[in-house]
Amino acid sequence: MEHRILDMIESPADLKVLTDEELQILASEIREQIIRTTSKTGGHVAPSLGVVELILACHSVMNCPHDKLLFDVGHQSYAHKLVTGRLKDFDTLRQYKGISGFPKATESPYDVHPSGHASDSVSVALGLALARDLRGSDEKIVTIIGDAALSGGMAFEALNHVGQAQTPMVIILNDNEMSISRNVGALANYLGHKRASKSYTRTRDHIQSALESRGGWGQGLVDFGRNVKDSIKQMVIPDEMLFEQLGILCTAPIPGHDISAIKRTMRVVLEADGPVLMHVVTKKGAGYAPAEAHPDVFHGVSPFDIATGEVKKSSSAAPKYTSVFGKALLAEAERDESIVAITAAMKDGTGLAPFAEKFPNRFVDTGIAEEHAVGMASGLAIAGMKPVVAIYSTFMQRAVDQVIINNALPKLHTVFCLDRAGLVGDDGPTHHGVFDIAYMRMIPHMKAMAPSDEAELVHMLHTALALDGPVALRYPRGEARGVELPSEPRVLEVGKSRTVREGNDVAILAFGRMVQEAEGASDILAAEGVGVRVVDMRWIKPFDEAAVRKAALECRLVCTAEEGVIEGGIGEGILEALAERPPEKVPPLLVFGIPDKFVQQGKVGLLHKELGIDAEGMARRIREKLAEL
Amino acid sequence: MEHRILDMIESPADLKVLTDEELQILASEIREQIIRTTSKTGGHVAPSLGVVELILACHSVMNCPHDKLLFDVGHQSYAHKLVTGRLKDFDTLRQYKGISGFPKATESPYDVHPSGHASDSVSVALGLALARDLRGSDEKIVTIIGDAALSGGMAFEALNHVGQAQTPMVIILNDNEMSISRNVGALANYLGHKRASKSYTRTRDHIQSALESRGGWGQGLVDFGRNVKDSIKQMVIPDEMLFEQLGILCTAPIPGHDISAIKRTMRVVLEADGPVLMHVVTKKGAGYAPAEAHPDVFHGVSPFDIATGEVKKSSSAAPKYTSVFGKALLAEAERDESIVAITAAMKDGTGLAPFAEKFPNRFVDTGIAEEHAVGMASGLAIAGMKPVVAIYSTFMQRAVDQVIINNALPKLHTVFCLDRAGLVGDDGPTHHGVFDIAYMRMIPHMKAMAPSDEAELVHMLHTALALDGPVALRYPRGEARGVELPSEPRVLEVGKSRTVREGNDVAILAFGRMVQEAEGASDILAAEGVGVRVVDMRWIKPFDEAAVRKAALECRLVCTAEEGVIEGGIGEGILEALAERPPEKVPPLLVFGIPDKFVQQGKVGLLHKELGIDAEGMARRIREKLAEL
Repeated sequence: MEHRILDMIESPADLKVLTDEELQILASEIREQIIRTTSKTGGHVAPSLGVVELILACHSVMNCPHDKLLFDVGHQSYAHKLVTGRLKDFDTLRQYKGISGFPKATESPYDVHPSGHASDSVSVALGLALARDLRGSDEKIVTIIGDAALSGGMAFEALNHVGQAQTPMVIILNDNEMSISRNVGALANYLGHKRASKSYTRTRDHIQSALESRGGWGQGLVDFGRNVKDSIKQMVIPDEMLFEQLGILCTAPIPGHDISAIKRTMRVVLEADGPVLMHVVTKKGAGYAPAEAHPDVFHGVSPFDIATGEVKKSSSAAPKYTSVFGKALLAEAERDESIVAITAAMKDGTGLAPFAEKFPNRFVDTGIAEEHAVGMASGLAIAGMKPVVAIYSTFMQRAVDQVIINNALPKLHTVFCLDRAGLVGDDGPTHHGVFDIAYMRMIPHMKAMAPSDEAELVHMLHTALALDGPVALRYPRGEARGVELPSEPRVLEVGKSRTVREGNDVAILAFGRMVQEAEGASDILAAEGVGVRVVDMRWIKPFDEAAVRKAALECRLVCTAEEGVIEGGIGEGILEALAERPPEKVPPLLVFGIPDKFVQQGKVGLLHKELGIDAEGMARRIREKLAEL
Repeated sequence: MEHRILDMIESPADLKVLTDEELQILASEIREQIIRTTSKTGGHVAPSLGVVELILACHSVMNCPHDKLLFDVGHQSYAHKLVTGRLKDFDTLRQYKGISGFPKATESPYDVHPSGHASDSVSVALGLALARDLRGSDEKIVTIIGDAALSGGMAFEALNHVGQAQTPMVIILNDNEMSISRNVGALANYLGHKRASKSYTRTRDHIQSALESRGGWGQGLVDFGRNVKDSIKQMVIPDEMLFEQLGILCTAPIPGHDISAIKRTMRVVLEADGPVLMHVVTKKGAGYAPAEAHPDVFHGVSPFDIATGEVKKSSSAAPKYTSVFGKALLAEAERDESIVAITAAMKDGTGLAPFAEKFPNRFVDTGIAEEHAVGMASGLAIAGMKPVVAIYSTFMQRAVDQVIINNALPKLHTVFCLDRAGLVGDDGPTHHGVFDIAYMRMIPHMKAMAPSDEAELVHMLHTALALDGPVALRYPRGEARGVELPSEPRVLEVGKSRTVREGNDVAILAFGRMVQEAEGASDILAAEGVGVRVVDMRWIKPFDEAAVRKAALECRLVCTAEEGVIEGGIGEGILEALAERPPEKVPPLLVFGIPDKFVQQGKVGLLHKELGIDAEGMARRIREKLAEL
């Protein structure tokens, strides 16, 4: 801890005076810091450890924030945060009101774009480059994109445009073999071949010897008047030209933990007069044995023990919704061989690993490719299979059109399982799943459910599979309620709620995780002599209009509660039913949900409290409202 | 007209007994029929004329509907419709309750998927293929995808997966140089090189001579025990291997109007034990001189004169919203050099052609790549430019996530201009722009407006450019109202409506094109002594809450009217404001909008009437409601 170089780095300018050896020492210090902090906060350990040298090399040769360094999926940016003035706050990483686990422009001028969803950075970088060219300014633009993110269609769209636009920018392909380890996609195989080819080692050796004999390929070479493109071309593997065919010059794979090699190559490619893809091979989790051994576990990890790498167990006895879903789907698939499970690079995250193990032929991981995953599901459904698409709520935003056109319009029986629906906690605004109620309920033919506990999830999945047409399930990240799981799942009646607390003063019509908070509010107000009925609505679409009308007739105040945006949410839909076909009496109505703003990071409980949708918050607002009546 | 072969074709099976010469005659008859029908109905003439031989060849060698023939963007499928039992209804093409201009599974067992949005067919085809493999059935799966559609990221995601899955399917690349003519994308350049290369003609000649000397490469060859893959490999151009690097065998370009050549190649590729990309070169509009000369005009065309190719002028004196937008943006760009116009293969359709002509450096057409277009816009906005993204409402569904994460979250000043918002008419459910109010208003930081006439559009565009943060404008397809255009645009007050008809019995709070219908309803009811106030709300977000409250206080009935889905729409939002913060008196409320179903094709007026959102329909429902009160 004493005499760290890291403590002297106030901005990337300070890196420029360091020797490569000192930078290598700094890399170790940064690794230590990342491990120390994330062992307490949790975080994206393996991705960030993999690119420490790469980031240091970039900042050593670039002049940020004049130059722009982008991260495709910014959870790899911890080293960047540490050398751009955020060391002193680093222990607040991903904490409520602390520094973000992703780049965030309002946090630092060195952060360029939000980068929470994969495959977007090449588009953003090209926009920056076109703006630069229009203004006639001279900033360098560099983005670091992982091989896994390259499978996302948006990245291809951007590369296709970059190849045509031919404006200078550097796309660093951070090839950590993640898409390989998952064996996803032909592009991954292509990259694998490229790495494995003799030309990789040959070219690498060639670069090394060239660098040594000529005193480096960097600025020196350019000064000697050599054409930059020629320099780069010597790094290109001539018979491996996928990117070249798109018009993007591409380097041979460069060892990604060798700061000197990266710096020298960077200096060359930054002077190119067109786009260059710089292929860098890194190791995910590099420098921390547990993360190197289990890059999947340490991709995004909870607090862990540094010495052993053991992840700290949650104290809860309740299972996670994700794992309940995974087991329930596996059981369904054992009974029904038409079920095919689909995900988009979220096999573990959606609980499908056991399914994939048991039914490898009926499991499809498309890699980061939500649009394709949802489109492909429609093909399976047309052919009579029952596709179950498990994708996080926030990432399903990428495939809204495919849900509408490919699945809902032809009324196909596709089941959409939206994990991480509602607030997700530490990952913050790019990852909260707060829009799905709005974007699913607007779609004709769609049915949608939200379980209030894990037993309900089992029944709802069973129900979704027994229905026809498109069906969506949304359930939250994290632990369920610890209720007993049913021995046999049953089919729930469509559009039928269940009342879980009786009461005739106030009714809370609650969805999903909000049922628990509503029960809490009911308990609080019961102690004050106010009878609060809690209805677990179960169905977002079609919702139980009879229960709504009954509540309106019998109670002095009716509330709706959902863990999603109010604008376009189901609370508004319930109001519409009452407005157009009013019962004899319509009482005042309160809509609980996410207000019209992006919600920051933090533990879910804290966020619920901040937004006034925890039990206390709801009880307080109901109390106030009743006082007005 | 007499003794047509076409009249004898009841199903594709009938094609199998025809000689290639007879098929070529049939192709001419089909062309004639397409031209004759579309000259009255309008339609996608050029795309459909380009693939007549290709479709006949496919249906001659395939066994549909057991085999599956898909169309990527199904507006090219007219010949397919004509040989699959829809000749007698063909004159109802794109008409209200007539046959669809796109494949539609409920219309015919030969139609596989909706295919109204580009780049989706490879995903659907792979889903069909995986289902086939799971079931152990043997159907062939073929999709026809245009070169322009190939730039869509979803297609790349699918190709990446196809290359890995290695299951048999044929992807016919219908290369009609559309993406070339638009000079969009590096892939287009690549295909251009491929076509232009000596190897194209060499290989084509080689195929021809091989076919001749060996009596055809088709089934015969396979029977001779030759490996199919070897056969195909002879068609491959070895030094042009973009698709090969993704693991997809690719043929040399095949002349797309030579039925014999296509049939023979098809027979070979259909026997391959893995995926094959069959590269076919066609001419858009082939066989009809005006369409060949102006493929852009005849891409999707209104009724026209067959002899001259002249498109029939609309009788209206009013300009189209699209062209008013195009001119207004051009005028803005002359004053403000930070404006950059972006579209995704909709340059003409969004009225941006004059802009592109005048400011080529500040105009970007990404090709079919909505995700990238919106992501790139965020980069331009970060760098201080003012990106204006003009994309049809229905296609913006492809980029909902990029609107949220890349633009709204960092509160960038990006202006989204959603042309074709509301019902679009003849193109039907895949093209109606009915979801944008719901998917835009759910997004924090978003502002949204809907002009009720063309002068309003000019002011609103000016306002959007003068604001900060993300702003959306939505305006309909087709003619505006013919009002005078302002000499100078002005900045409208945020969230402020204007009252266009006074009245104190009923209020209609109307958005966009619905203002005109509301005025009509007001006129109808005025004759009956009912005073109907009409408020042009102007702003969807934030809406004019004061005007809403005033209407609620002063009128016996309050209605909202929007040309978008009710579920998640702004009508619900208005209800929410009244429910949570009720004025002294809340009258009954009616929400006019698109009900919860997919709306079919037909003239917009007819559809408004069917849905009860025309002037008469609104007046009727208001009358009924008042009678209940």
